[in-house]
Amino acid sequence: MDAESEKILARLLKTTRVAALGTLHDGAPFVSMTSLARADDGSAFYVHVSRLAQHTRDMDADPRVSLMFAEADDGRVDPQTLARLSIQCRAEKIERADESYAAIQKLYLSQFPASEQLFSFGDFNLWKLIPEKARFVAGFARAFNITPAELRRVVKIK
Amino acid sequence: MDAESEKILARLLKTTRVAALGTLHDGAPFVSMTSLARADDGSAFYVHVSRLAQHTRDMDADPRVSLMFAEADDGRVDPQTLARLSIQCRAEKIERADESYAAIQKLYLSQFPASEQLFSFGDFNLWKLIPEKARFVAGFARAFNITPAELRRVVKIK
Repeated sequence: MDAESEKILARLLKTTRVAALGTLHDGAPFVSMTSLARADDGSAFYVHVSRLAQHTRDMDADPRVSLMFAEADDGRVDPQTLARLSIQCRAEKIERADESYAAIQKLYLSQFPASEQLFSFGDFNLWKLIPEKARFVAGFARAFNITPAELRRVVKIK
Repeated sequence: MDAESEKILARLLKTTRVAALGTLHDGAPFVSMTSLARADDGSAFYVHVSRLAQHTRDMDADPRVSLMFAEADDGRVDPQTLARLSIQCRAEKIERADESYAAIQKLYLSQFPASEQLFSFGDFNLWKLIPEKARFVAGFARAFNITPAELRRVVKIK
């Protein structure tokens, strides 16, 4: 991947707060919207979801999920040149008893302070989405397969 | 659905040029970004995709797809209040010999003039995504199941 594309990818990873989340629902894809926090080292993303929500029930039934981050449509003539990243992930619920829970809750709330009250609700849980492979499109006909190690490396780029 | 939510849904349907597209890939969900044009009456969406792209190969293998439109993240404190729409669709390739092809190409190019050249490439095809059911979230805790008939009705709201 060229340096310019790496910069675009780093920016996308660092500025995205809202992504598309694809889950498997009755054997078909289902895409919803989710807020998400990123582990500082780029090794995982965290979502805070109600167990009543369809995407949560889907993740419970099948941990294979897909995240998609895209640059916002700025009205340019050709939106196919917008940068976007698709990440295939494995979803894992973080139990409240897990030793990592408090730190992840703190990280999440630092980005989404409005969610504080939801953490007191019994039906909301933190889930960890762990990247397994990714596809990055920096613009038209500039596409790259990305490994989890590359995501961790690129997220450090200033 | 209340009148205010209907207005938000109408705006989302009418202003969205870029959506998340969920397809089934090796049995798992895969989310990519796509430009899309809407049939005037809200009965379908059209995408113009290369048969070499993963989402196209996925649609070829299984017509069950999911579209997700979301308001752009405007930096608000709580992005969970952004409006979004998930539409479960059936994907159908539009053959060049189909009588509807020319009109759909014209509609598509009226919104995406930069795609003109791609229509001369043999590996690009128009696909029709036909809504079967949808879920609209107008904001936190304001969610509605939407039928294809409701999409066609709401898209007429000014």
